Amino acid sequence: MKNFSLSDIKKPIAHELVQFETVFKSNLKSKVTLVDLVTKYLLKQKGKKIRPVLVLLSAKVAGGVTERTYRGATLVEMLHTATLVHDDVVDRAEKRRGLPSINAVWKNKVAVLMGDYLLSRGLLIAVENKDFDFLQTITNTVKRMSEGELLQISKTRKLDNDEETYYRIISDKTASLLSTCCEIGAMSTTDKTEEVSAMKEFGENLGMAFQIRDDILDYIGSSMIIGKTPGRDIKDKKLTLPLIYALRNCDKSDASAILKLIKSGEKIKDVEIVVNFVKEHGGLDYADRKALEFAEKAKKTLDIFPLSESKTALESLIDYIVTRKK
Amino acid sequence: MKNFSLSDIKKPIAHELVQFETVFKSNLKSKVTLVDLVTKYLLKQKGKKIRPVLVLLSAKVAGGVTERTYRGATLVEMLHTATLVHDDVVDRAEKRRGLPSINAVWKNKVAVLMGDYLLSRGLLIAVENKDFDFLQTITNTVKRMSEGELLQISKTRKLDNDEETYYRIISDKTASLLSTCCEIGAMSTTDKTEEVSAMKEFGENLGMAFQIRDDILDYIGSSMIIGKTPGRDIKDKKLTLPLIYALRNCDKSDASAILKLIKSGEKIKDVEIVVNFVKEHGGLDYADRKALEFAEKAKKTLDIFPLSESKTALESLIDYIVTRKK
Repeated sequence: MKNFSLSDIKKPIAHELVQFETVFKSNLKSKVTLVDLVTKYLLKQKGKKIRPVLVLLSAKVAGGVTERTYRGATLVEMLHTATLVHDDVVDRAEKRRGLPSINAVWKNKVAVLMGDYLLSRGLLIAVENKDFDFLQTITNTVKRMSEGELLQISKTRKLDNDEETYYRIISDKTASLLSTCCEIGAMSTTDKTEEVSAMKEFGENLGMAFQIRDDILDYIGSSMIIGKTPGRDIKDKKLTLPLIYALRNCDKSDASAILKLIKSGEKIKDVEIVVNFVKEHGGLDYADRKALEFAEKAKKTLDIFPLSESKTALESLIDYIVTRKK
Repeated sequence: MKNFSLSDIKKPIAHELVQFETVFKSNLKSKVTLVDLVTKYLLKQKGKKIRPVLVLLSAKVAGGVTERTYRGATLVEMLHTATLVHDDVVDRAEKRRGLPSINAVWKNKVAVLMGDYLLSRGLLIAVENKDFDFLQTITNTVKRMSEGELLQISKTRKLDNDEETYYRIISDKTASLLSTCCEIGAMSTTDKTEEVSAMKEFGENLGMAFQIRDDILDYIGSSMIIGKTPGRDIKDKKLTLPLIYALRNCDKSDASAILKLIKSGEKIKDVEIVVNFVKEHGGLDYADRKALEFAEKAKKTLDIFPLSESKTALESLIDYIVTRKK
């Protein structure tokens, strides 16, 4: 598997990404000064822009980028930003993308309201342009994202999870939006149901691979990443795939001991013991294999589209996702 | 002005309110157990249901309650509930309607996510039934509500507000949703633009009167009300109409002294001084007059509708709103 950098992947849509930035920025303008102040700050917290990239590449593969594609990309990026702002409130995160979080600068109240504002602002773009197909999928996605997070919370509280429920959680909380990005990209340029469905399925599988990789990264250490603490999931008592597998493939007494450790402690030494336990019981290898399986599935769904620079970029994006170090 | 109780006002739609409860409850069902648990709890926190009442009465006045009316009422009540749940997070409120708040029982994370869930669940009802006219108005309302709150926050931080900005804030944060209730009620039953506009305007003026009355109640004491602390706005450094008027109609030196007091202290004695200052300078009388002006304006917009039991109920609702003690 050849590795691509994100900037290589973005090449076929370099021009479109610039145009997207313009549309995105102009849609963020508000008559309320504080809103403008916060959105300007948000624009400084530059992310990887994987979601707009997915919308643009999917559109290009399915026919070509249209006006509607830019609106779709703006909609998903606003929604994603809204959830990040809310996430930082609930996780009491002090940093986001190397800069202080909104809640750290302006307090929780502003952060919760800004999240609500960004969500409604995004939906309003779709409403005003009568992109009702976008609305249908995105509203359902917002619902699934919150349900997925809430399901994860209840599993976390009980310190109990299995592989099937894990997939359901990550499908709802992560894959749903990435799937919607690809679906919206396709919908913005074609009416062909088969192509829209294929793109949606591509995004779903890519999203599953993305989240599994995220959960692996929490184990293999990511101290280089600003704002992310390795072992965070263990401290948060989240049972993700590597740990679920390891717990299933060890002596019952070992499993109880590990669960007891997770339950009781947040000490660095305890986290290290859990990480080593997962490694020794093949949890990371198993999760790696599963991520690759979803990645391969994703690539196969692209078979119906003709060869193009953008299709290759989508395939490289999958490779990037399952091998990324942060 | 004759006073009506809320239960009198609800009489013409007693049957419809029961039906609404059924629709509302059935739409809250989720496959995630934790979501069901929280929504069941939310149903126990019984509110006054002013928003569904407005939707149902407006529909009845404009033609009659339809299937769409129930969906509209469900949509606005879900949105309203979502904002209450988020409000309690940002205000760190421990109680809501006499019961512990969601954040108090399940922590902030669940409360923020449940707010997002309820908002998207509400929008999804409109999307699934292709009530795109509802979506248009409601999405814009969500945006206005967050903008209004954010404008209020920036004014609060600077301890600076004037009557014009005050009206803009309360129009966005409160009147917008009440206006949308009446608009949606009318839209659910008629296509006549004039009637829909009249109902929208009725709701806007009712909403203004509602919030001014709310701000008055913060001064005239409301210790009977569970979960509400009198003088809360002063402690929060919110400059509402009674105080704005009083500050404008006193010596400059008095105004500075009062502002200094608000800025420095949250002591009960300080709050009492501010309350007395507002009373002495006619702030409450002025706000009362303004609330009545908006109430009269609201009633006038109903002129185009024929006399009916429901129209009388809407007029009584206005009277109830500007005279209510809680």
